Amino acid sequence: MKLHGYFRSSASYRVRIALNLKGVRAEHLPHHLRKGEQRTPAYLALNPQGLVPTLENDQGEILIQSLAIIEWLDETRPEPPLLPKDPSHRAKVRGFALAVACDIHPVQNLKVLARLRQLGLPEEKVTEWAAWANRDGLSACEKLIAAEPGPFCFGAAATLADICLVPQLANARRFGVDVSAFPRLLQSEAAAKALPAFADAAPERQSDAG
Amino acid sequence: MKLHGYFRSSASYRVRIALNLKGVRAEHLPHHLRKGEQRTPAYLALNPQGLVPTLENDQGEILIQSLAIIEWLDETRPEPPLLPKDPSHRAKVRGFALAVACDIHPVQNLKVLARLRQLGLPEEKVTEWAAWANRDGLSACEKLIAAEPGPFCFGAAATLADICLVPQLANARRFGVDVSAFPRLLQSEAAAKALPAFADAAPERQSDAG
Repeated sequence: MKLHGYFRSSASYRVRIALNLKGVRAEHLPHHLRKGEQRTPAYLALNPQGLVPTLENDQGEILIQSLAIIEWLDETRPEPPLLPKDPSHRAKVRGFALAVACDIHPVQNLKVLARLRQLGLPEEKVTEWAAWANRDGLSACEKLIAAEPGPFCFGAAATLADICLVPQLANARRFGVDVSAFPRLLQSEAAAKALPAFADAAPERQSDAG
Repeated sequence: MKLHGYFRSSASYRVRIALNLKGVRAEHLPHHLRKGEQRTPAYLALNPQGLVPTLENDQGEILIQSLAIIEWLDETRPEPPLLPKDPSHRAKVRGFALAVACDIHPVQNLKVLARLRQLGLPEEKVTEWAAWANRDGLSACEKLIAAEPGPFCFGAAATLADICLVPQLANARRFGVDVSAFPRLLQSEAAAKALPAFADAAPERQSDAG
């Protein structure tokens, strides 16, 4: 399997965690987003969105969108499960994951921030925008799991929710958000980061980091 | 079941289509987003994101995020299926749906556009932003299904992909995007709109429209 990604992309980071949790080895092919390597004709032929990650599986199939890739991994390699068995519990976990993947991450990604700069927004306002998206979104996430048992987002094992949370908290810190306002999220993050699957997937441990 | 929504919200529109396809009756509870009714303490207690839709199911469970709600519907009421059976086909359909739900819709939703206005952006630039998000995203979506058999996004039946596509095309038109550039998407939209499940879910047919 080949994973096209970027060390700092939080969507790539999610898939790296999921691959590690499933014990799947993949060749990592970095595309430097700040140099626009995701906009080359060769990469666009693979992923018309010009976003990372893209997974080429062992059958040569091209899969895009981190959550679709992770659901595919979970369906083809059921152990350990990344979603609970009960449908309404699954909906809770997916609801949390989507609150991050739809309503925080895309609003503060490289493409949107670049567009804000094009509109003439000064750098401090661009950072403020990214911080707002993270603070506002994570504050809702904190409430979503306030009554859920820990230490992970939803109980005793890591799920898709933790896979989305950990990379997003890294972004939030990068944009200067005071994450101490989110004790329940930090509890889940600590439990997750104690697992090698999460630790090994961290941006700073990737070959293209630097 | 109760669906908290808003006639013009494309995420609510997705869930209305899915409920209709599954033949599930729900009580529709409108929240006027432009009047801020999704920010009342009572609604925030239900959905801490302050977004629509929220589904209260027959067990009184609260489900948020349109795609999580639709996956739950599909898992609890398998017919007609909204996703194919084969895992890599499922990943293709989910990939398309997420390309809309993550990378188009949240970048042009009411909250983000309101934030742009707060930054002092004139109305024409705000509309231009929303048009850009739709044009750019739908252009990738057109390529994602170019080689897929029609008439729907992925073959002979409506899936989660069509459920996400139809509301997004409505938004694109509202923001002045020339959708004739997307013939394959328009083919899928025409097939979908011929189904009562899609037609009855349209914004203009809802009790809160106007």
